[in-house]
Amino acid sequence: MASNYTENFTVEKCKTSKINDVDFDDLKFGSVFSDHMLVCDYKNGTWEAPKITPYQPITLEPSSKIFHYGQSIFEGMKAYKDDNGSVFLFRPTDNCKRLNISAKRLAMPELPEAYFIDGLKALLELEKDWIPTAEGSALYIRPFMFATGQGFHASPADSYKFIIACAPSGAYFSGQVKVLIEEQYSRSANGGVGFAKAGGNYAGQFYPTQLAKDKGYQQVIWTDDNTHDYIEEAGAMNIFVRINDTLLTVPTSDRILDGITRKSILSIAEAEGIKTEVRKIKVSELIEASENGSLKELFGAGTAAVVSPISGFGFKGQDYELPKLENTYGALLKKRITDIQTNKVDDPYGWRVKVC
Amino acid sequence: MASNYTENFTVEKCKTSKINDVDFDDLKFGSVFSDHMLVCDYKNGTWEAPKITPYQPITLEPSSKIFHYGQSIFEGMKAYKDDNGSVFLFRPTDNCKRLNISAKRLAMPELPEAYFIDGLKALLELEKDWIPTAEGSALYIRPFMFATGQGFHASPADSYKFIIACAPSGAYFSGQVKVLIEEQYSRSANGGVGFAKAGGNYAGQFYPTQLAKDKGYQQVIWTDDNTHDYIEEAGAMNIFVRINDTLLTVPTSDRILDGITRKSILSIAEAEGIKTEVRKIKVSELIEASENGSLKELFGAGTAAVVSPISGFGFKGQDYELPKLENTYGALLKKRITDIQTNKVDDPYGWRVKVC
Ligand SMILES: Cc1ncc(COP(=O)(O)O)c(C=O)c1O
Ligand SMILES: Cc1ncc(COP(=O)(O)O)c(C=O)c1O
Repeated sequence: MASNYTENFTVEKCKTSKINDVDFDDLKFGSVFSDHMLVCDYKNGTWEAPKITPYQPITLEPSSKIFHYGQSIFEGMKAYKDDNGSVFLFRPTDNCKRLNISAKRLAMPELPEAYFIDGLKALLELEKDWIPTAEGSALYIRPFMFATGQGFHASPADSYKFIIACAPSGAYFSGQVKVLIEEQYSRSANGGVGFAKAGGNYAGQFYPTQLAKDKGYQQVIWTDDNTHDYIEEAGAMNIFVRINDTLLTVPTSDRILDGITRKSILSIAEAEGIKTEVRKIKVSELIEASENGSLKELFGAGTAAVVSPISGFGFKGQDYELPKLENTYGALLKKRITDIQTNKVDDPYGWRVKVC
Repeated sequence: MASNYTENFTVEKCKTSKINDVDFDDLKFGSVFSDHMLVCDYKNGTWEAPKITPYQPITLEPSSKIFHYGQSIFEGMKAYKDDNGSVFLFRPTDNCKRLNISAKRLAMPELPEAYFIDGLKALLELEKDWIPTAEGSALYIRPFMFATGQGFHASPADSYKFIIACAPSGAYFSGQVKVLIEEQYSRSANGGVGFAKAGGNYAGQFYPTQLAKDKGYQQVIWTDDNTHDYIEEAGAMNIFVRINDTLLTVPTSDRILDGITRKSILSIAEAEGIKTEVRKIKVSELIEASENGSLKELFGAGTAAVVSPISGFGFKGQDYELPKLENTYGALLKKRITDIQTNKVDDPYGWRVKVC
């Protein structure tokens, strides 16, 4: 099964692996990179066949549009290894579909699904020794696409590069996360690009997040840009709220990323008999629930951190603490989803994809 | 005077100039690049001294944050040459200030003004033969800054590169511009990064602009993302409206770029005795004015096109034509500003800066 993925791809292996330089017992998130990457170029209206090459620098003209007009999108995925050394992906076609949704909104060319999926599998077969197995760790996978075409005219580029790189990674957040509910800054507009995984959406978050950090918070809860009355996302994660025994999350929109962890959590919660509601959530409702004791949990959900419990939030100079519960929905759902991802339990949903 | 700018800079000249390969009688906008560029690196918390090098490719790690998190900002300026061969810039410190406003919002390091201004002057002394003199043409200057620091963690980079590159350019638009007033898409959010010259703001405009082009329009008039009732910008230009004999433009905000052409036009119009008003403008007001004949002109204003007259606009499936006037404010103001830029008239404002 293994070799047929690679048949159509040029594979240029690195001369010496860097794997022995890496301390797998002390992995940070996304800061060391594996030996190889997948590269695919778009030129003259078509995607050329993917190549696997050593992980290596990229050379670009100063006039390449990536430097000027922000045509850059990405995805974030993980590969997991089970006790038998088998390698798995989680809902990879959803990442490919979302990449192409982002591509369309940023006027970039859509990538054929086979290039994405088969390319990724071929790459992972080569990089499987790079997949860490300690709890909370995984091989973080970063597919990304950017404009290489040149010119100082504000218009879409005529050539693009798609790359998949891999980074063996430990946990994303360490420790408790206290968040600030944003009253002034926003990450996205109605009719904007918030639903796309566009590079520019992240750069725009850094400064407000820095201001929040200076006040002692680790992340920002984004609110709608018009009224700041409704919560939207938790940093670069979707947000979940537990009020009494109901698990709430906000509907996706053109301002909010359609997270794969979010939708998986909704499915698992339902299967667990947890009552879920997808509806708009007012900041005032959170505060009221916090004050009357019905607010039980608040957590972010995303590929990097899976579930990231929030210990408290700030709003208008006031701090609100979440109760310290023993058995949280967050911990339960994180375990269920991680068990599926790492092949510890059956996967009734068909989400897990075996690579090799 | 000339040489003292360069004293602190390393200057590495190119071996052979490309200037004879360029057809100066047939220049497009921003598609050929001059022989040299200015490069300045930010590392370990400081900006290193600028270097002038041959215009050449840039090599980056695949994990450089420019490819992932959109930390990229730019400026757009022009250098002009008068009949005596003297070289001029137009309000260059305003571009530097705005670059640093953009930098702050994108959590990027601010660049010392001396590096920007002196660097630019040194570069222009070297590139002065590249400045075209035909009417409507100029040396377009592109200062830009982007994240070189590495990592797949969504946080600001720890290193950056600032570059100034030059492109001898002809006129930006050719022919009449018909615009579509946007009812669905938006370029910026309240509390977002619309006021910054951030790369991501431009990529987000391409798809809606493409849809407008498919319908026969060349540009989009952006409206507020909440109601789409108010006009905001004209593509990548500020917008001006003439109703009867009053020249209107909308106030800048955190959604709108504070254009240097816009504010220069406001000053010149006042000096010309043209009544100006800076206030919000409703789409419905435009349509009413078009219908009752009081709408006389509509134009975009920006460095690239200076003044770009709009011949008509579409809204909700309806087309509205602008009258064809003989003596327009647009043409008058364009002439006045261009005459100052190219040293054809006195500059009572102190905007023109002689380089050499
Ligand atoms: C803005 C934003 N929201 C939510 C998510 C969560 O999406 P996913 O669960 O697909 O990783 C991400 C990505 O991780 C994100 O960048
Ligand atoms: C979004 C936007 N608005 C307006 C302008 C006009 O600004 P300036 O007159 O400084 O060139 C620009 C840049 O040219 C722009 O990118």
